[in-house]
Amino acid sequence: MLDAVFFNSKQNSLDLLDQTLLPGEIVTVRCFDEEQVADAIVSMKVRGAPAIGVAAAYGIALGLLNKANHQTSVADALNRVCKLLAGTRPTAVNLFWAIERVKKLVDQSAGNDFMAVAATALQEADRIKAQDIEMCRSIGRFGAEFLLDGQTWLTHCNAGALATAGYGTALGVFRAAKEQGKKFSVFIDETRPLLQGSRLTAWELLQENIDATLICDNMAGSLIRDGRVHGVVVGADRITSKGFVANKIGTYPLAVMAKYHGVPFYVAAPVSTFDLSLSYGDEIAIEERNHDELRFIGDKQTAPADIKVYNPAFDVTPPELITAIFTDRGVIRPIYKETIPAVIGAAEVFK
Amino acid sequence: MLDAVFFNSKQNSLDLLDQTLLPGEIVTVRCFDEEQVADAIVSMKVRGAPAIGVAAAYGIALGLLNKANHQTSVADALNRVCKLLAGTRPTAVNLFWAIERVKKLVDQSAGNDFMAVAATALQEADRIKAQDIEMCRSIGRFGAEFLLDGQTWLTHCNAGALATAGYGTALGVFRAAKEQGKKFSVFIDETRPLLQGSRLTAWELLQENIDATLICDNMAGSLIRDGRVHGVVVGADRITSKGFVANKIGTYPLAVMAKYHGVPFYVAAPVSTFDLSLSYGDEIAIEERNHDELRFIGDKQTAPADIKVYNPAFDVTPPELITAIFTDRGVIRPIYKETIPAVIGAAEVFK
Repeated sequence: MLDAVFFNSKQNSLDLLDQTLLPGEIVTVRCFDEEQVADAIVSMKVRGAPAIGVAAAYGIALGLLNKANHQTSVADALNRVCKLLAGTRPTAVNLFWAIERVKKLVDQSAGNDFMAVAATALQEADRIKAQDIEMCRSIGRFGAEFLLDGQTWLTHCNAGALATAGYGTALGVFRAAKEQGKKFSVFIDETRPLLQGSRLTAWELLQENIDATLICDNMAGSLIRDGRVHGVVVGADRITSKGFVANKIGTYPLAVMAKYHGVPFYVAAPVSTFDLSLSYGDEIAIEERNHDELRFIGDKQTAPADIKVYNPAFDVTPPELITAIFTDRGVIRPIYKETIPAVIGAAEVFK
Repeated sequence: MLDAVFFNSKQNSLDLLDQTLLPGEIVTVRCFDEEQVADAIVSMKVRGAPAIGVAAAYGIALGLLNKANHQTSVADALNRVCKLLAGTRPTAVNLFWAIERVKKLVDQSAGNDFMAVAATALQEADRIKAQDIEMCRSIGRFGAEFLLDGQTWLTHCNAGALATAGYGTALGVFRAAKEQGKKFSVFIDETRPLLQGSRLTAWELLQENIDATLICDNMAGSLIRDGRVHGVVVGADRITSKGFVANKIGTYPLAVMAKYHGVPFYVAAPVSTFDLSLSYGDEIAIEERNHDELRFIGDKQTAPADIKVYNPAFDVTPPELITAIFTDRGVIRPIYKETIPAVIGAAEVFK
């Protein structure tokens, strides 16, 4: 299995497959402390909501390991490390969920032995990672029920093994369908500006021998109109209690196109992506990223240096455009405030 | 005025501003014969439906000039040159319209003196160019009536001075509104895969001091939803008798988004863009371009070399999604088979 977020216990390092260089170069970035992990999240060397959560959990363990020789308490060190990691990206809720989970456990262990609490944090990070893989397999199984033999589906961005601990959410549906022996094809939105579709999803699906065709984001509309797409499936970065889904920019227009043409639109996400403290889409913080992402591609300048830019990383899709949400605990359909906790058992997850 | 398609009578060359290199480099390509003109059209050094028509008209004149010393008749040379130029790109009807217009005149002149018929062709090319500028000014005046002070509009691709003989269709609306002293802002879709929005429209609007902000194509949806766009205006490559509009890929989903959110969607095009020999959208030939346009950006590889690609250059928007078409002869609204000839006086233009 593709392992893009790997804790190297010989080196005490978090080894990340650098997703900014794929598919041209396969380079592993070795992070020895929490600052290197934070940098890797900010610069999107590791990206995808679940993968960011796993990386941050390991980042806490590394942070505690490295603070052992400093004149500080475990509590102080923990707070500082968690604050740094939580400040990397604002939209994906899995980041905060994973940090909270490790922090709570370390707080409860209440020791002041840095090596011991670091070991506790590391074990919890390992558990988060293992559970993520299991959750994705479960999401995949639930979602694959909806993918019929001979169909063509479309996906946006990369909600794959690279975005998770190794199996994928939206792409987990394709992996599960393939394991079930189904024949199907996939259209991949290239996903501007950072091209996670062409760089990452295309690479992953080729490796899995899944029949895939790359398109520009603006080509999906006429393909859907022409009846060449039977379903759309995307991942999610945050889902509110009423079912508003924040995901990679470009998800919302895709959901409108699908609705307009009567094509089902699915979201695939683990329960850790739900944020029941929020109700509506406009409560979700939307990250705006560097403007040069639109002015340059690699070193090549593709727009005037002085043109103004608007570069939101995410948009929000309302529940009425979503046919179903595939979670690790079952399928939510239709999307209502009542159907969400009924499936994910919110009380136990979020308290 | 920006003059991207300029006949240099001292050199007997067609000088084209190379639109594949903008905005990084400002390079003029000098074409001395019809083959160089055809290459420039195929490789999109010159692009935009009206500009292609003007370039092809000059290409005929150059072709006739260069055949003078060959053992051939004017009729043979004319046929061969026109066939070459007509085979460059299939979708923009202005190309065929301009070629037919020059060809008919040269045929009527019926002489066999190459220099004389070349001069006739050159004069007609000059006339097509001058008329294009007048048509664009007229389109701009009609369209600017709809752009209210303080509004923000969105445009896709480049239907500007670079796409025409020097004033633009969709961007002509903005030029005219500015000349009228209106205050407004523009969002520019970058327009994948060839980035005509970020490379060309951004450059043009900066030069005109029009307030403009660049976005990725997939960001338009949430801007429209959020009420930040008051109108959308695009150019056209071909319009059928029933008002189906072929334009740059990505136009159709934009029209659906506008309809879904009650935002007016306008098309700006001269009468030469109408092809009354066709009725429905599926009768329009849609060019599919090189797959490496999605796998590479400049020299940089952005997708696996062996990923399949689908790369249509255009899509078709049906009349029910179009609020109005701004032509040089007036505004067509609503778009019906009857309202189109009523405005453009089809009989006289197309017979």
